[in-house]
Amino acid sequence: MNLYLAAKMTEFKFVARIIDLYTEERIAVINSKDAMRLDIKPFDRIRIRKGEKAVYSSVYLSEKLTESGVIGVTKVVADAVGLKDRDEVLVELAPQPLSLVYIKKKMKGETLTKDEIHKIVEDIATGNIGPLETLAFALTEYFVGLDMNEIEYLTRSMAEVGDRLDFGEPVYDKHSIGGVPGNKVSLLIVPIVAASGLLIPKTSSRAITSPSGTADTMEILTNVELEAEEIIKIAKKVRGCIVWGGMLNLAPVDDLIIRVEYPIGIDPEPQMMASILAKKLAVGVNNLVLDIPTGKGAKVETIEEAERLARKFIEMGDRLGIHIRCGITYGEQPVGHAVGPALEAKEALKALMGEGPASLIEKSLSLAGLLLEMGGIAPIGSGYSVAKEIWRKREAYEKMRQIIEAQGGNPNIKPEDIPIGEHIHTIYSPVDGYVTKVDNRAITEIARAAGAPRDKGAGVLLYVKRGYKVRKGEKIMEIYAERSTKLQDAIRVLNRYLPVVVEGMLLKTVSKGEMYLS
Amino acid sequence: MNLYLAAKMTEFKFVARIIDLYTEERIAVINSKDAMRLDIKPFDRIRIRKGEKAVYSSVYLSEKLTESGVIGVTKVVADAVGLKDRDEVLVELAPQPLSLVYIKKKMKGETLTKDEIHKIVEDIATGNIGPLETLAFALTEYFVGLDMNEIEYLTRSMAEVGDRLDFGEPVYDKHSIGGVPGNKVSLLIVPIVAASGLLIPKTSSRAITSPSGTADTMEILTNVELEAEEIIKIAKKVRGCIVWGGMLNLAPVDDLIIRVEYPIGIDPEPQMMASILAKKLAVGVNNLVLDIPTGKGAKVETIEEAERLARKFIEMGDRLGIHIRCGITYGEQPVGHAVGPALEAKEALKALMGEGPASLIEKSLSLAGLLLEMGGIAPIGSGYSVAKEIWRKREAYEKMRQIIEAQGGNPNIKPEDIPIGEHIHTIYSPVDGYVTKVDNRAITEIARAAGAPRDKGAGVLLYVKRGYKVRKGEKIMEIYAERSTKLQDAIRVLNRYLPVVVEGMLLKTVSKGEMYLS
Repeated sequence: MNLYLAAKMTEFKFVARIIDLYTEERIAVINSKDAMRLDIKPFDRIRIRKGEKAVYSSVYLSEKLTESGVIGVTKVVADAVGLKDRDEVLVELAPQPLSLVYIKKKMKGETLTKDEIHKIVEDIATGNIGPLETLAFALTEYFVGLDMNEIEYLTRSMAEVGDRLDFGEPVYDKHSIGGVPGNKVSLLIVPIVAASGLLIPKTSSRAITSPSGTADTMEILTNVELEAEEIIKIAKKVRGCIVWGGMLNLAPVDDLIIRVEYPIGIDPEPQMMASILAKKLAVGVNNLVLDIPTGKGAKVETIEEAERLARKFIEMGDRLGIHIRCGITYGEQPVGHAVGPALEAKEALKALMGEGPASLIEKSLSLAGLLLEMGGIAPIGSGYSVAKEIWRKREAYEKMRQIIEAQGGNPNIKPEDIPIGEHIHTIYSPVDGYVTKVDNRAITEIARAAGAPRDKGAGVLLYVKRGYKVRKGEKIMEIYAERSTKLQDAIRVLNRYLPVVVEGMLLKTVSKGEMYLS
Repeated sequence: MNLYLAAKMTEFKFVARIIDLYTEERIAVINSKDAMRLDIKPFDRIRIRKGEKAVYSSVYLSEKLTESGVIGVTKVVADAVGLKDRDEVLVELAPQPLSLVYIKKKMKGETLTKDEIHKIVEDIATGNIGPLETLAFALTEYFVGLDMNEIEYLTRSMAEVGDRLDFGEPVYDKHSIGGVPGNKVSLLIVPIVAASGLLIPKTSSRAITSPSGTADTMEILTNVELEAEEIIKIAKKVRGCIVWGGMLNLAPVDDLIIRVEYPIGIDPEPQMMASILAKKLAVGVNNLVLDIPTGKGAKVETIEEAERLARKFIEMGDRLGIHIRCGITYGEQPVGHAVGPALEAKEALKALMGEGPASLIEKSLSLAGLLLEMGGIAPIGSGYSVAKEIWRKREAYEKMRQIIEAQGGNPNIKPEDIPIGEHIHTIYSPVDGYVTKVDNRAITEIARAAGAPRDKGAGVLLYVKRGYKVRKGEKIMEIYAERSTKLQDAIRVLNRYLPVVVEGMLLKTVSKGEMYLS
């Protein structure tokens, strides 16, 4: 293969048509005859140009779907260059992308320059390199790693290739590296911090692999799909918000990278750091509390590992002008008792109203306290108690009502107003004993099989957590689903896992090493 | 992500329709409404089952392209399970493939068992894991490697998942690891060896990254697209053939792996070994001469490296029951003078008729000689001279005429009958001096830009090779093209390279480090 930049070839005129084919992949369809004329071979990519804007795409051939002279494009391709039906475009065989040379350089263990990394990020954004090349880059990060300079360049480039929010004043934020189900702490932290007067405009994500992202949970209470200008207006007015970041084109390359990492199930550390921090840069965050859930079954398994990662994040924050404090939290079991959008929103709302599981409230107050200290609202060491006061006096609940209303929801929503799945399966303890384990992955898989996050009312409610004492026949967990077929799916998944282990419980080992709840 | 085998979900009935969309990717199109019903999310894969046969596919959504209840599939999907238009199929969301667990195990540096590797190969074949997962496997081979046991398992599995040819007697073969343009030696070796009486049914490939594969070159002289039974019949009759292996479903997983390696430009050694040897196992090869072109600009750069690779191939051959001898050959410049299908076929035919460049004839006779020794036709050490006698007496030419005729071509074809491109660009030496370099990659890129291998008459003809003395103004190279636009493309590529370096020639360095022929 030619790794040099190929000579510029000829452009051909086409009329664009947006085709009725929905996929996130960048795909164009041309007539087989035109393919001959353009010398298109399998695996080739084309460049579609409209004026100064260009997008790169895979190309499929068709006899009839598009007639000669017409190029059918998927919506993502059209959106990338602002194409409308019947627009004239110029099409050429894409030259070998220069960024592939840099990816291969990194594959050999060499160090990349700022410009080289920027070119890779730019080429992922335009589609000049496609999913395979993007995965090659992510896997090279996994196997070879990036040094601190490279991570800094990657972070800055990812933020630059996309839009930014400017609040014109110091911005506070909280982020979790994830991996623990039920982690609805942002719904408590944001109103506590906003109630203190600090600005905390939280852009959050929807679930990719979890039963509910913060945006999915918040959506139960109010609208989370807001435009940039609305977000700025709302945040300035009520000092905080919890919105979905997906509409804002913040570090959009992140999504393209996640899309290829997801099927493989990788999340290499340099990319995780760059992805988190690029979005923070794009939102103009100056002060960040980073939650690092730690323990068996979490992303980070040991305290030593969590400390190492925390130091790395803090150093990277210094380079980027973001003041970071890390909270290493207990990550071996779900946070609180509820897992799934509606169940979690219900639990968070109850907690804001003064009543909720200690694991949820303590964690939220601790992390909020760190932010209050960073913002000078509380002296160092007393952030937790100041946060607790804000929560205890219902100032956080009052603030949440303002946020819900500002985002377009009903501020008077009550926990009991929130509908949850009507198809319920209850699991009882088979023995007397102490709960020795609540398995994150099992809970996640069961909740997702039950329909979460798409079915908002689906999820899992835990009646016990690690260390609880239970009696034989006592309720330990409920599965909620909106559809009976999904409940059956969840029960099938349940039968492959041990979501809750009670000491003394019989573990039946069957062939292929799978274990069933006795 | 769930790395456990998910519980079996429900199958839905669909009517299949083969859609007018050509791509090598496995793609199905369903109506958006059905997607809701099946709970299809972006990135999901589906399993399409017809009776006992199943294929896995990506899924795109459409409003109108397929109505509810209909699933549109590309031809590769249909072919995989023998689907015809309007066949009823059962569709379900694909469970997480078990082979992904094994790929991730290997990513962590662990060793895979025979069964685990077989599952990976099987899942690549059915599409149960798609291009991204396949690339993850190939890149893991690149970064982590495979040990000899793993390579053996991979080779055997790749051969098993596919068809086989059975000639019922010892089979001889020659293979080059590639990387050197103009390497048309098989067109001399096969008739020499067949003329000796040994059976040499050569299945060859078309070019992927080179200007001409052996199948492309042979196709100038005769038909190369033959069915398995014809190949066996022809080979038994005339003792040899040179056909395209692409129709025979030999180790088909190889193609699926190459398809993802190609855009990245990787060819990890374990995969290269397994790919070559799986095809040999599938054809029942017992005795193989492996050509390892070596030197700067070839795949293998040093003799030490070539020897290491040779030993590895020989050991792997022992494990697989294939007797292998390796020829380490000079690979720093093209073999012979001609590059491109028609130009190479012309040169090979001339050489068989007694007249041709020493580099082509010597290399062919040496490698053919090794096979004659392996087959007991020549005593050890005298293979070359026996091969030379067969060539000198025109027995090889006579045999080639028989092969051409048996495969359906005209045995009386003369070199001057072969049409070559009429658009010609000549390059003259700018100075007096010795040729110090003929660059493989530059020649390859120029020939491909000129249209090779698709335009059969396109390519490059070298008038000089390394060590030749030339005068200023003397012809050093010609570019041939069938179309003037392609000739212009080739000239543009030429201007970025130094395909031939004559000592004392001015190398003009321009910005960005590109060099032009002065």
